[in-house]
Amino acid sequence: MPTRHNVTTATPPLLVTMGDASGIGPEIIARAAAAGELDDAVVIGDVGVLRRAVAACGLMLPVAVFEHPADRATCPGGALAVCAPPGLGDGLAGLPFGAIDARAGAAAARCIEQAVAWMREGAGRAIVTAPIHKEALSAAGVAFPGHTEMLQALAVAPGEPAPPVRMMLANDELRVVLVTIHLSLRRAIDALSTQVIVDTLAITHAAGRRLGIQAPRIAVAGLNPHAGEGGLFGDEEIRVIAPAIAQARAAGIAASGPFAPDTVFMRARHAAARPGEFDFVVAMTHDHGLIPVKYLGVEQGVNVTLGLPFVRTSPDHGTAFDIAGRGVADPASLVAAARMARRLAP
Amino acid sequence: MPTRHNVTTATPPLLVTMGDASGIGPEIIARAAAAGELDDAVVIGDVGVLRRAVAACGLMLPVAVFEHPADRATCPGGALAVCAPPGLGDGLAGLPFGAIDARAGAAAARCIEQAVAWMREGAGRAIVTAPIHKEALSAAGVAFPGHTEMLQALAVAPGEPAPPVRMMLANDELRVVLVTIHLSLRRAIDALSTQVIVDTLAITHAAGRRLGIQAPRIAVAGLNPHAGEGGLFGDEEIRVIAPAIAQARAAGIAASGPFAPDTVFMRARHAAARPGEFDFVVAMTHDHGLIPVKYLGVEQGVNVTLGLPFVRTSPDHGTAFDIAGRGVADPASLVAAARMARRLAP
Repeated sequence: MPTRHNVTTATPPLLVTMGDASGIGPEIIARAAAAGELDDAVVIGDVGVLRRAVAACGLMLPVAVFEHPADRATCPGGALAVCAPPGLGDGLAGLPFGAIDARAGAAAARCIEQAVAWMREGAGRAIVTAPIHKEALSAAGVAFPGHTEMLQALAVAPGEPAPPVRMMLANDELRVVLVTIHLSLRRAIDALSTQVIVDTLAITHAAGRRLGIQAPRIAVAGLNPHAGEGGLFGDEEIRVIAPAIAQARAAGIAASGPFAPDTVFMRARHAAARPGEFDFVVAMTHDHGLIPVKYLGVEQGVNVTLGLPFVRTSPDHGTAFDIAGRGVADPASLVAAARMARRLAP
Repeated sequence: MPTRHNVTTATPPLLVTMGDASGIGPEIIARAAAAGELDDAVVIGDVGVLRRAVAACGLMLPVAVFEHPADRATCPGGALAVCAPPGLGDGLAGLPFGAIDARAGAAAARCIEQAVAWMREGAGRAIVTAPIHKEALSAAGVAFPGHTEMLQALAVAPGEPAPPVRMMLANDELRVVLVTIHLSLRRAIDALSTQVIVDTLAITHAAGRRLGIQAPRIAVAGLNPHAGEGGLFGDEEIRVIAPAIAQARAAGIAASGPFAPDTVFMRARHAAARPGEFDFVVAMTHDHGLIPVKYLGVEQGVNVTLGLPFVRTSPDHGTAFDIAGRGVADPASLVAAARMARRLAP
């Protein structure tokens, strides 16, 4: 039997958003809860959608409904605790599985908004988000390309400047922090500056300290082949990246590089036989960073948004429309995300 | 004991270039030869340098010197067969290990030139190149950034158009062919066109057929995050890559994609428990392709230049100046390169 978490009134619950109702999010939540992995969590979502997921997985899991996360303490042991935010919309449990639908996108966004609102009033310990579908979000008229950008905007009061945030992907072997994410490769190159890299290094350093690492060793991957080969294959390493590393080092951060992108991840990899040389790799582009994290399989990967005023993690996979509704989705990455949230949360 | 290769006069020898005399090239050659892995090969290099490598490795390996690869048949069993090209320069065996030196760069280039000349007269079966150092090459005034570009220029008569070539990196799990290589990332994006991708697919298809695969399954990785997410994060997939895939398919090539760069390599990976979905992945940039090939370690990786009028392979690592002269370099990748050359050669 998995360990049941002892929740006191002093520790608010993890807030788990249900994600896109037509995807596997509700099912992986149901399976994680049935395995005792969400006993300190409240799911922000639609009760009908979650009941449907429990049934799809063939589980005998009671679903308990609450108005506010603070009521979690009264939840019967072994039940799935759900808070439905106002304005979720009707008929969500009737949406077909595996199809893009604006109603699912709108409901997913509403759950995220509510989760942030509860975090801001101190009612949650951290946010764990189940997968959303970018096209459903877009069909619903939501102006953000993904979770990260949405959380960044919601984390502060309207009009306040959004904090710089970075996406970290982590598994047992590798922790990668991305300088740029959802931009075309051309625009990602344009977006690189010494300041955004310095910010990334500071955010990464803080995350490492939060994980209990005294002086986190941060490798910085270059942008160009062979990290520019001394300027022969591009000068961003010389003009932009090396000065950022120097600034970070002057501030006491154990950053090094820029290293050739094609070998730095291998060097950082923590394998059973050989501990990696670094605690984190900072990558300039989405795919330089995510290709190695995902290469060995995505089951155990966790996505962490660093730099927000609260902790947010998510599984490292999408809505998997092709298997949604069949009760076969693997909850391992969601479970890993919840565990990482507990490690990082205050 | 390893199998000894039965060499008949009808099959010319593999031509192994010694690489940079200050790096580990001569040592991995000596160790591969001592293991019986180069019994059908002639090393193009300096006799003194190779004798020094044999000594550094603590081997009792006789070195036999010939004027021309055709004389290989007269080599005593178990000896390292060497042909020294004219004009190699003197004193190479006195160069310090682990330092960039123009004389080492010039000698490495001279060996490559001679190997190509012998291939063009039918005196070699395939070329296997030991590592060179790009800065030593540049210090020697050689105008090519690496082996691939040099071989491409040397493969044809002066004035003839160079054939389109592509770099393939292969290990037991993955075969990756690169559309662009030694360019800054900005220039690599500029260099993408439907035609260069169509050429890459045709070259890849031909390599697959040579390896005995009836209809090689070629996955094409996109350039942008999420392969552009339908145009949201860049339009190269729509404008350039998808049309190339359509052209290749119309020509009977089993190409598919463009796929998201961050998951296509995982899908193509051949693991013991799960065969990959594809025989090759075509990557738009040097590092999208090489990060996954190198992630698990470079020991068994092989570099293959596709599209030349002859077969050329090389180990997937550099000169390793930090360990040169100590006799500890691992010959596994060179051995794998020689084996791949035999599989691909006519």
